[in-house]
Amino acid sequence: MAHMRAEIICVGTELLLGHIVNTNAPFLSQKLAALGVDVYYHITVGDNPMRLGEAIRFASERSDIIITTGGLGPTVDDITIKTIMGLTKEEVPQWIKNDVGSAPGFITEYEGKMLIALPGPPRELEPMFDNRIAPYLRKKFSLKSTIWSRTIKLTGLPESKVDNKVKDLLQLEPPTTVGIYAKLGEVDLKIMTKTESRKAANRDIKTIENKIRSRLKEYIFGYDDETLEDAVGALLIMKKKKIAVAESCTGGLISHRLTNVSGSSKYFIRGAIPYANEVKVKYVGVSEESLKRYGAVSRQVALEMARGIRTLMKVDIGLSVTGIAGPTGGTKKKPVGLVYIALSLGKKNIVKEFRFKGSREEIKFRTSQAALDLVRRECAHS
Amino acid sequence: MAHMRAEIICVGTELLLGHIVNTNAPFLSQKLAALGVDVYYHITVGDNPMRLGEAIRFASERSDIIITTGGLGPTVDDITIKTIMGLTKEEVPQWIKNDVGSAPGFITEYEGKMLIALPGPPRELEPMFDNRIAPYLRKKFSLKSTIWSRTIKLTGLPESKVDNKVKDLLQLEPPTTVGIYAKLGEVDLKIMTKTESRKAANRDIKTIENKIRSRLKEYIFGYDDETLEDAVGALLIMKKKKIAVAESCTGGLISHRLTNVSGSSKYFIRGAIPYANEVKVKYVGVSEESLKRYGAVSRQVALEMARGIRTLMKVDIGLSVTGIAGPTGGTKKKPVGLVYIALSLGKKNIVKEFRFKGSREEIKFRTSQAALDLVRRECAHS
Repeated sequence: MAHMRAEIICVGTELLLGHIVNTNAPFLSQKLAALGVDVYYHITVGDNPMRLGEAIRFASERSDIIITTGGLGPTVDDITIKTIMGLTKEEVPQWIKNDVGSAPGFITEYEGKMLIALPGPPRELEPMFDNRIAPYLRKKFSLKSTIWSRTIKLTGLPESKVDNKVKDLLQLEPPTTVGIYAKLGEVDLKIMTKTESRKAANRDIKTIENKIRSRLKEYIFGYDDETLEDAVGALLIMKKKKIAVAESCTGGLISHRLTNVSGSSKYFIRGAIPYANEVKVKYVGVSEESLKRYGAVSRQVALEMARGIRTLMKVDIGLSVTGIAGPTGGTKKKPVGLVYIALSLGKKNIVKEFRFKGSREEIKFRTSQAALDLVRRECAHS
Repeated sequence: MAHMRAEIICVGTELLLGHIVNTNAPFLSQKLAALGVDVYYHITVGDNPMRLGEAIRFASERSDIIITTGGLGPTVDDITIKTIMGLTKEEVPQWIKNDVGSAPGFITEYEGKMLIALPGPPRELEPMFDNRIAPYLRKKFSLKSTIWSRTIKLTGLPESKVDNKVKDLLQLEPPTTVGIYAKLGEVDLKIMTKTESRKAANRDIKTIENKIRSRLKEYIFGYDDETLEDAVGALLIMKKKKIAVAESCTGGLISHRLTNVSGSSKYFIRGAIPYANEVKVKYVGVSEESLKRYGAVSRQVALEMARGIRTLMKVDIGLSVTGIAGPTGGTKKKPVGLVYIALSLGKKNIVKEFRFKGSREEIKFRTSQAALDLVRRECAHS
């Protein structure tokens, strides 16, 4: 059977004013792709019956399934129901229960094409699509999953260098392709393949994955939805290690990320944010002499913090960061973005210097990413 | 002069597959609205010359300014330049310098309408629009800012209750309107007005703002881009107070948020994340007896943590949280989402019980929001 084509029409003046970011279109697109339905257009119109009507008419000429989002509520701005009823002249569409909110969705037909209206709030739309619309479409059109993907997540190497290592793979033609997506402190390689058999898909994906692994293994921290903190947590559990963190310039972000993982109390014992210098001395074992001689942002203080918190807490791993997150506080010798990350593992102690770029929040995040990655690498090889 | 109409066409198969969220459309929409240009449509098409060409033709029939984003790079997927050149048959468009990346943008004309092509990556598109396109449009069409807005940010009251308090204002008709936007732990009321005079806009906005303030004053923490941590920071500086935080279930998030504010080292002295019970005793002054008798998640331990960190650090304010972030670890008596937040101010000590809903990360965020709000309220009234 030829591929079905869907078109997504998002309704809402708040979208056209840029007040909210449209997450419904990517959500539906991903889900439709996974069902083997092609999406060729996303359209956004305001709360305007004429323009919504026109969008639906255009869509009916080129797509098999038209999905609208938004405009189903009870206020005068909610024009979707009226507009669609006016077009279809159908009195009783098939109503779709909303398990989370009050406005139901519905399915009807227009010019022989299926027309599905979903609520705007993502927390209502997402379960409605997953629990009610996807099974309906799967049955109605005998859809089978035909798009399979696997995301390989890397950190520690900039996008340009990852790109260079896999240039040939990024140029692959369908059915199996590789895309590169750069995020803050992370680069993702997404392998996608189109086939009706899960077995063939797994084989095709595995072939590419092995090529990527052979070239970039040490930078890979996880797959698909796995976060770096998930990966670190799993390693700490596997290796039966406990960790304590003394973080200055990240101000709690490393501990926050580690404790985002359910069950982290098994390995995360204590986080310390010794912002003031006297706290560094009193609570994480930094010497006053080092602070005076080298300053708070130095290799020596980073090492003393990591060693200090490890021995104080009697844990396996002490992790510390100290740096200048900016935008103020930098000097010529110690500029904004200068960060020291130290890891104390008992016999082995490591300290690394980094020079990060970006806003205060970006520097904090990049620091947390590099720190967690250092833990990951050491745990993986210990 | 009648309002100019713009249409935004985003080009990229990765958008249609849902691999990335489209932030260019809301960014451009906000900027165009501020210039007094109306946006009636957002269109997204894949890397497909035929469909991009069709979208541009449709747009030229209904809009004065057509802006495309994406597809300007050097790879075979980058079809925007070729497609537009094919349509316009113009040999030399007006190239627009890219200060951040390598692909320049350009301005040309199609069917008498202005056609602007911008790069896809937001970090290239945003400065190009702000620094080069906006001034160009302003001059070319003698545009004046005609949309003015002010966002009033609230926390501590659910959307339904805020809605109830300002129902009449939410029904206002243009030129001055109010919108309500619910976020995690926050509700925003956005006042918008259309007028050519800044003075008239300020007056109209102020009138509505005063009504909102008179009804919801205690829940308002900030305006426009101000965050709750910005507001708390500004109050701590104004009142010359120093703070130390002992946070258990938030795992560092409160300290992370406080230290996101540049200059926070003036008032933020120490964050402690005493995840293990022995750390609560040794480092933040909790008694073993209370831990045994009431458990780590209790009013008593919350109070001892807040008092303990305040007196240990000799600061004005000790803030503590202890709770069950889930998804595991809950019991019938102490379910997931149960949180105690305590504030120690010397003579005055407060502890509050909360029962939050949501995922682990949502409960952590809601807890941090309630904790920072408690500090804000106490500082504002002290």
